[in-house]
Amino acid sequence: MLDNKGISKAVINRMPRYYRYLGSLMEQGIVRISSADLSRQMNVTASQIRQDLNLFGGFGQQGYGYNVGHLYTEIGKILGLDREYHLIVIGAGRLARAVGSYVGFQKRGFRVKAYFDRNPEKHTLNREDEVPIHSLDELESYLKDNRIDIAVIAVPAEAARLLVPVLDRGGVRGIWNFAHTDLDVPAYMTVQSVHLSESLMQLSYKLNH
Amino acid sequence: MLDNKGISKAVINRMPRYYRYLGSLMEQGIVRISSADLSRQMNVTASQIRQDLNLFGGFGQQGYGYNVGHLYTEIGKILGLDREYHLIVIGAGRLARAVGSYVGFQKRGFRVKAYFDRNPEKHTLNREDEVPIHSLDELESYLKDNRIDIAVIAVPAEAARLLVPVLDRGGVRGIWNFAHTDLDVPAYMTVQSVHLSESLMQLSYKLNH
Repeated sequence: MLDNKGISKAVINRMPRYYRYLGSLMEQGIVRISSADLSRQMNVTASQIRQDLNLFGGFGQQGYGYNVGHLYTEIGKILGLDREYHLIVIGAGRLARAVGSYVGFQKRGFRVKAYFDRNPEKHTLNREDEVPIHSLDELESYLKDNRIDIAVIAVPAEAARLLVPVLDRGGVRGIWNFAHTDLDVPAYMTVQSVHLSESLMQLSYKLNH
Repeated sequence: MLDNKGISKAVINRMPRYYRYLGSLMEQGIVRISSADLSRQMNVTASQIRQDLNLFGGFGQQGYGYNVGHLYTEIGKILGLDREYHLIVIGAGRLARAVGSYVGFQKRGFRVKAYFDRNPEKHTLNREDEVPIHSLDELESYLKDNRIDIAVIAVPAEAARLLVPVLDRGGVRGIWNFAHTDLDVPAYMTVQSVHLSESLMQLSYKLNH
């Protein structure tokens, strides 16, 4: 599968991992690294690394390797981390709030603006959240008044599917889906799903084979 | 990549998805389904489905299709869902507890027996958890006295890496890793990672391309 720039899904899956390793190298004060060393650490071949990064214009210099800080910044740009995103979280249960505060904690330009829940009065957010919980009934009008880039969905499967047209009409273009279902969206929207139970089943499969 | 039975990673990734779809068909009271119908719903080709299931011995009958309940049970067995797993959760922060209660909620034989945290006194579990929080210092001796199959790791990267040898000595063979790092484990152990921030970055990439 290629996206509109001809970049394969596998490459897109690897980019955040490069970003994570480079971030950890920076924390260790490492300024430059050869593709061979990066390859050893990441357990990816050096030629794979060069090939992946060449898709976006290279960044390495023969005999020098990669400048860690520069590459980190450039990959961050490729990943769209050089801008701000406004998020809402739909659901206010444990998983919803864990994901919401996880995102806030990342401090990478992902700003959680509000939670929405069928029973907002049932939930008390910790003070650290500093984000209001609205009733799900208010979602449509909220989206008329506020530009929201990404909706985190952490509600049951059936409810999740019903949300898609509301989010679409409200101009939301990205969905981070934690519901136990696949979501059909128009081509101009993007869904990224985290299927926790499938991940756990892959683990139990591997434990038995 | 093939596992020891020659089953590719891609197939293993699809099996939980078959399981989810079949479960939802059962909830709708559907008793049998053709591979063509299953294929339409799952957005996978019918020949792919037949090929995947043939790896495990088929299950379909020419002209009948698949018996939903039977296939659900058989895939459950393939995924190792016909036995019980004892889990511990390391970390007692929001994400740890959300994942812990999520697992308990699944009621599929995954039993959370205990949480471990550096500061157990800092955390209060909800009554619904009904699981003790121990100090991380007690992990090693706990594992001597209790058979634990899977450790859920939801602590910072550095701490996560230090846990691996302790878990190994304690006989834990599966790790469900939510820490922001890859974990090196001996070949007889299995790690399944959920890298939330990488998933979010894949979403932001797609929103910008």
